[in-house]
Amino acid sequence: MSGIIEPILTMSAELSRLPGIGPKTAQRLAYFIASMPLEDVRSLSVALWEGRKAIRFCSVCGNYAAGEICAVCANQERHNGQICVVRDPRDVAAIERMHEYSGLYHVLHGTLSPMDGIGPDDIHIRELLSRLQTENVTEVILATNPDVEGEATASYLARLLKPLGVRCTRIAHGVPVGGDLEYTDEVTLLKAMEGRREV
Amino acid sequence: MSGIIEPILTMSAELSRLPGIGPKTAQRLAYFIASMPLEDVRSLSVALWEGRKAIRFCSVCGNYAAGEICAVCANQERHNGQICVVRDPRDVAAIERMHEYSGLYHVLHGTLSPMDGIGPDDIHIRELLSRLQTENVTEVILATNPDVEGEATASYLARLLKPLGVRCTRIAHGVPVGGDLEYTDEVTLLKAMEGRREV
Repeated sequence: MSGIIEPILTMSAELSRLPGIGPKTAQRLAYFIASMPLEDVRSLSVALWEGRKAIRFCSVCGNYAAGEICAVCANQERHNGQICVVRDPRDVAAIERMHEYSGLYHVLHGTLSPMDGIGPDDIHIRELLSRLQTENVTEVILATNPDVEGEATASYLARLLKPLGVRCTRIAHGVPVGGDLEYTDEVTLLKAMEGRREV
Repeated sequence: MSGIIEPILTMSAELSRLPGIGPKTAQRLAYFIASMPLEDVRSLSVALWEGRKAIRFCSVCGNYAAGEICAVCANQERHNGQICVVRDPRDVAAIERMHEYSGLYHVLHGTLSPMDGIGPDDIHIRELLSRLQTENVTEVILATNPDVEGEATASYLARLLKPLGVRCTRIAHGVPVGGDLEYTDEVTLLKAMEGRREV
């Protein structure tokens, strides 16, 4: 009785796996795609697949990169002694949208979460420590999310790094507690960055 | 300064061509896709492209079909003398979601719009007329959108079909005027279908 053909159902099912796309939106998108010119669908499909395949991680900071190192690390003007530590590459994008931060990043690719069995060896902490030995780092800005895991990770890193004599700061609680860095607006992010304090 | 690599920009650009996906949502989706396992992205990409390629139109009613005729036309129990005329295949899906209509469809693939140079020969009216000659049709339900073009198309079809002795009805204005059939909830659609009247 549904009258919806299998290709559209398959498209809907795949689309509804994306965040924020419920079954109704997925079906609406599938119908739209069904009515798009073949060439446009080909270009969408190829962009997603080739795009995903082209994703590399920067060998220095762990950010997304098109080549061996990312655009931030490749920019010599950004080697100012600051390293901003975040969970995901998408957090790098959020901070970059602020257009105020001019230092480097370090992407942990996760946060400490004993409940999920994620310990210090499962995220890129070792890589951060080795950067502190080879790079001239004056400040590590802990910009993990303001949630339980993010706070725990920031505390852990502060305890680990301070004995090494490196200045550790935590972004201010201008970012809403329990929120997600990716969805924070530029002004709030700027306030959080300005209000950072010693830990 | 953007720190967003080209594959993600390309994915964002392609995704933002979809309806209801603005630049920010597109970028969020692109980052999500960048973090998805390769195999999942492959399956999404293939579903969209293969799905689009598999889209056929029913040779009888013009609905989307996987084969020569659509699932509705293939179902002999639905040959009850009723033909519901809609603009798009997605309108068929909207009416099917109501789970109350048990007749057949005819998809016009457009509505009359002299401003855009779309006349009676540009939409599937001729096909509807030939169905009236070969099928045992007792009622044509005009279910084009309740906007200017949809109303004009319904009036045109009513004037064309009534001299042929076929009963023409128009769905009631339970559907919000100026709205879009695709976004109408099932209850409103049901009211509209129940309240249909002679034209």
